[in-house]
Amino acid sequence: MTGKHVAFIGGDARQLEVIKSCLSLDAKVSLIGFENLQSPFSGASNREISPELFATVDMLILPILGTDEEGHVDSIFTTRTLVLTEADMRALPSHAVVYAGIAKSYLKNLCEEVSIRLVELLKRDDVAIYNSIPTMEGALMMAIQHTNITIHDSTSMVLGLGRVGVTLCRSLHALGARVKVGVRKQSHVARCVEMGLKPFLMGELTDEVRDVDILFNTIPAKVVTEAVLKEMPYSAVIIDLASKPGGVDFAYAEKRGIKALLAPSLPGIVAPKTAGKILAQTMTRLLAKEFGEEGSSP
Amino acid sequence: MTGKHVAFIGGDARQLEVIKSCLSLDAKVSLIGFENLQSPFSGASNREISPELFATVDMLILPILGTDEEGHVDSIFTTRTLVLTEADMRALPSHAVVYAGIAKSYLKNLCEEVSIRLVELLKRDDVAIYNSIPTMEGALMMAIQHTNITIHDSTSMVLGLGRVGVTLCRSLHALGARVKVGVRKQSHVARCVEMGLKPFLMGELTDEVRDVDILFNTIPAKVVTEAVLKEMPYSAVIIDLASKPGGVDFAYAEKRGIKALLAPSLPGIVAPKTAGKILAQTMTRLLAKEFGEEGSSP
Repeated sequence: MTGKHVAFIGGDARQLEVIKSCLSLDAKVSLIGFENLQSPFSGASNREISPELFATVDMLILPILGTDEEGHVDSIFTTRTLVLTEADMRALPSHAVVYAGIAKSYLKNLCEEVSIRLVELLKRDDVAIYNSIPTMEGALMMAIQHTNITIHDSTSMVLGLGRVGVTLCRSLHALGARVKVGVRKQSHVARCVEMGLKPFLMGELTDEVRDVDILFNTIPAKVVTEAVLKEMPYSAVIIDLASKPGGVDFAYAEKRGIKALLAPSLPGIVAPKTAGKILAQTMTRLLAKEFGEEGSSP
Repeated sequence: MTGKHVAFIGGDARQLEVIKSCLSLDAKVSLIGFENLQSPFSGASNREISPELFATVDMLILPILGTDEEGHVDSIFTTRTLVLTEADMRALPSHAVVYAGIAKSYLKNLCEEVSIRLVELLKRDDVAIYNSIPTMEGALMMAIQHTNITIHDSTSMVLGLGRVGVTLCRSLHALGARVKVGVRKQSHVARCVEMGLKPFLMGELTDEVRDVDILFNTIPAKVVTEAVLKEMPYSAVIIDLASKPGGVDFAYAEKRGIKALLAPSLPGIVAPKTAGKILAQTMTRLLAKEFGEEGSSP
């Protein structure tokens, strides 16, 4: 990355790994909002947001959460307020790329208006697969905590065989659960059979839930409806891993007395260090690739 | 069990499964301290402790915790105080057998004095193996909760390849950890190799702990000493599953800033229903065997 200029604006401990990588790849590194860093990086310089600086930047790296809807950028390494404005962004060279974990509409609109490419890391398929590991471990933790039985020898159900579904099914199976999997595609039925799981088509859900001890939902649509909940044992526990507002009729579950939990964003909670490593390694790999080098796998 | 007389004194929900089994095996069942049972068993009669009753009893079944050191027996189904005295116990026929999960010295001495056989279920090898499952799940839960990394891709260490050790190693391996196992016997080294684990001899512990993320101890002896703790990374987390007082120098771990947790008796905490089922099925199998029948496996 010799001769390339990478600017970091704000963030938390997770960005430090990326900064380290950029420096080791010989990039020019500018840090904005990192004044209070306990051990400053030699080779990186502390700067302010300005059109003059931005005019020389090849890559602008924002924190995982990007900006808020007013353009504020969070940083745990400064007490100052950082704001990303259109005037600054317009100064970026047209080949520049902006990286963030996810982007709210403020950042999306801004990048669109100034015609700068925006990469949302958390939307990448590889990141979602790596993140399914801490998500699965968080889901196991919740299942162990909130049931009075073991996962071993339980009848566990997973709805959806996507990136989280596959990881979860494999782990539940390895821990000795009987794993029933609700899917829609015949290719997913086949994959379940290959993995030693018991697939069923989502149309059969109402019949299939009758013997369930623990239900994990990964489908971001209202699939665990009143009709489904009516057939479930009262002792069942539901863990909803789908993005908000989840796939469970929580009001009816409560009415029927079935414990249903909406899992928060688990990677940052159960394994913040691993979650940071996933993002840092992905970003490092992307940066290296931009310059024709092949990144190493995390 | 036709013609046999089984008396239950006290206990909790776990005893109900055993009572059900005895009734289904056609035994005569007396219940002491079960007056407040919400749905009484038809076929069982509520009785009081007395030498007259005990003289006709073939099996006396106490709660998991047996008695306290004053002979009190706990029951969640009565508000009365139940006490087991020598006068009552002396009335038991010589062929009678007393069952409890574990026995304190009061109960042990009492049975010895009146020459009645006492069976402590939790000391049985099969029960210890079944119980290793909820213990393992509780240990996984603690590891997920108390570290900032995933078990997956961690370097996890298990000390001891006994009943809990085997179960834990297998699960950690299945979840994607690199599992190092401290053992003493060459047969255990061989078993580790067969299971895809990385064995080492306990004499090498001080060298082997240097790269450990999570250490699970199952050896009931002071093995994680000051010398060992000195070589561990500060970020490591220790989970001690050995019976009290555990195998870790907790005072020195705290001094060095290493998080070390003494795991409580996990089966009853993370999976009370499963733990109850394990004891109920074992007791049912034992009772059936006393009468020449073969019990089914749990």
